[in-house]
Amino acid sequence: MSNVSNEKDFRIIKKGITYPKGIKAAGIKSGIRFNRKDLALIYSEKIADGCGMFTTNKFKAAPLVVTEKNLVLSKGKLQAILINSGIANACTGEQGLKDAWESVKEVSGKLKIKEEYVAVTSTGKIGEFLPMQKIKTGIQEAIAGLSIQGGTEAAEAILTTDTKKKEIAVIFEIDGQEVRIGGMAKGSGMIHPNMATMLGFITSDISIKGELLQEALKHVVEKTFNMVSVDGDTSTNDMVLLMANGLAENKFIAAKNNDYNKFLKALYYVAEYLAKCMAKDGEGATKLIEVEVQNALSYDDAKKIAKAVINSPLVKTAVFGHDPNWGRILAAAGYSGAEIDTNKIDLYLKEKIVENGQPLKCSRQEIHKYLEMSDEVKILIDLKMGQENAIAWGCDLTYDYVKINTKYS
Amino acid sequence: MSNVSNEKDFRIIKKGITYPKGIKAAGIKSGIRFNRKDLALIYSEKIADGCGMFTTNKFKAAPLVVTEKNLVLSKGKLQAILINSGIANACTGEQGLKDAWESVKEVSGKLKIKEEYVAVTSTGKIGEFLPMQKIKTGIQEAIAGLSIQGGTEAAEAILTTDTKKKEIAVIFEIDGQEVRIGGMAKGSGMIHPNMATMLGFITSDISIKGELLQEALKHVVEKTFNMVSVDGDTSTNDMVLLMANGLAENKFIAAKNNDYNKFLKALYYVAEYLAKCMAKDGEGATKLIEVEVQNALSYDDAKKIAKAVINSPLVKTAVFGHDPNWGRILAAAGYSGAEIDTNKIDLYLKEKIVENGQPLKCSRQEIHKYLEMSDEVKILIDLKMGQENAIAWGCDLTYDYVKINTKYS
Repeated sequence: MSNVSNEKDFRIIKKGITYPKGIKAAGIKSGIRFNRKDLALIYSEKIADGCGMFTTNKFKAAPLVVTEKNLVLSKGKLQAILINSGIANACTGEQGLKDAWESVKEVSGKLKIKEEYVAVTSTGKIGEFLPMQKIKTGIQEAIAGLSIQGGTEAAEAILTTDTKKKEIAVIFEIDGQEVRIGGMAKGSGMIHPNMATMLGFITSDISIKGELLQEALKHVVEKTFNMVSVDGDTSTNDMVLLMANGLAENKFIAAKNNDYNKFLKALYYVAEYLAKCMAKDGEGATKLIEVEVQNALSYDDAKKIAKAVINSPLVKTAVFGHDPNWGRILAAAGYSGAEIDTNKIDLYLKEKIVENGQPLKCSRQEIHKYLEMSDEVKILIDLKMGQENAIAWGCDLTYDYVKINTKYS
Repeated sequence: MSNVSNEKDFRIIKKGITYPKGIKAAGIKSGIRFNRKDLALIYSEKIADGCGMFTTNKFKAAPLVVTEKNLVLSKGKLQAILINSGIANACTGEQGLKDAWESVKEVSGKLKIKEEYVAVTSTGKIGEFLPMQKIKTGIQEAIAGLSIQGGTEAAEAILTTDTKKKEIAVIFEIDGQEVRIGGMAKGSGMIHPNMATMLGFITSDISIKGELLQEALKHVVEKTFNMVSVDGDTSTNDMVLLMANGLAENKFIAAKNNDYNKFLKALYYVAEYLAKCMAKDGEGATKLIEVEVQNALSYDDAKKIAKAVINSPLVKTAVFGHDPNWGRILAAAGYSGAEIDTNKIDLYLKEKIVENGQPLKCSRQEIHKYLEMSDEVKILIDLKMGQENAIAWGCDLTYDYVKINTKYS
């Protein structure tokens, strides 16, 4: 295979959501949006174990309410996921719930699977109703178009203000059996800790106990999807869904053994890759920013600082302007609420530029050049207090962010 | 007097910090910045009671450390305040503290007042040292220039990226004696709850017990200065100082009586006026945004929602674009962490546009026009749950915010 990179425990494949066995997908134009793909369907030939992570926003969009309910009714089984872009079906009250349930019924009826095996998700404008006739016709078309090749079209159909589709796949072995994971995501605006309009879909053909699947997803999402922030706004529609249909026929994973760890590692890679893609493709972004905080007293402290820095509009604009204004980074660490010793903190931006809380003599010119030339800017903060680390991803704040969000609706 | 507006309990005067009896000020060009006023001095002829509120940022700038210490040493007495713009003297370690103390000594020596009666404050770039020779020469010049007319020049000298000076004065009577309050402030970027680079200075000739002065300041700052947010960044240098020299010779206020309440009301007006000026003049702002939250279960909940909405980049860009995208307002309320009932919430933007969590039929055109034509946009959220209210102020997020902060240092 030419499109394969090597990693230690798994190989990276330039494919997406339909890479695992028995997974098909489609992405079509249903007419919700003008002449753009706007409806995606993911389908597993075999009933899969499924689980999800959902927004913490109190205004939970109708499709999330319905999907969470279905995952309970089905006791963690999942076979089809319907996603539309353009309209979020959020703040739509009873009608919104009715529409979401109707979509479920439509998919279930046409695919001849149980209603409770269907998940529905939406992204786009808040407060508008789904055009149900278009959705229904679209569902039929999507079902007719389901294929292994449909992964990329599905990855395109879920995008809103994203500029690039985001998909990835990996393969690894358990006891000589090939196991696959595929993923796709959409991000862009309203992205913040605890699942902002950020949709992530991950499929696998691994054979694993449902509870372990849920635990793996939670563990991984906390440190990847939930560490991405574009603008600090947490959406009403965030959701990450994971389904595993067992068709790899590996030795069933029933405990947290080596096989589980292998899966966890591969799943982590997929989620981290998608999370970084979202940060990099944040609305108007020209650069990915990675903030790593080392040696905090607690993970919570490390996370607070990483998120405060990644969310600071002043840090974000400075990176956009290639301005080595490190004081803004320390100031963000200072107001994060985390325990820090201001006389101990070191800061690295290309090189060590602050030691024990005070600026070192360093070339502003060189740091300016680093910021100018790098697509990925790395900020490292060493607290020298404890042993806990965290990483957060975000992007710079640009004229285009303002432009995109000024005239969205 | 021609420059007087009428209010019920006090009159508004178009003057500033030197309006109270015995207060002089100066604002001069010391050369820290290029051909711009950058050094201000406020002086009370009589030793005054003084108190302050300081940033919660862990990286507290050197002048704040020094000023807090002096207020303790002097047991709440204050006679002179030195303010420079251009350099924040933050993250400057031992040298920064030394420089701040040296500035104190210089002011004290030249004015022949006790060192502990001197407060120093700085605003501007983090991580650079003060040019002490320029500061010293500047202090001499400022002292020579101290006058009642110097209030406006002082208000100009403390500005950074502000576009307008911010000053105000009020007069009221206690038992037939005229009592005056004057204030000035600088704001612009890095402004967020809990005192962001926001400097506020308020003087009065009232005669009042020191503890009551402190209590009044705290009460007022919580609901005014601390409810302003431009970008969510809390600076290392925030400070509000209040001094009262007693020269009004009103009946000494020793308890929370009617006279105290009169003073509190007038002080609140001054602080609110300055806070709104800061929000309105936020970096790149074209509009003041006021978010009022009514009928929350607790004040803390009301505050959380008001601040989440005022800080949301998506709400801020929508206002800039005159986009009636009310879903973003509800979404911000939803992730604020406050207790809300999504089926009860009402939202007003010009008119009631959401009732019980669901959109009413209303003219997008009209709201668009309201957003376009108004310099001050008012967002009202009624939770219909309890009886607590809060108001926060901010501004829209514009191309110019990005421009200003891209090339600051």
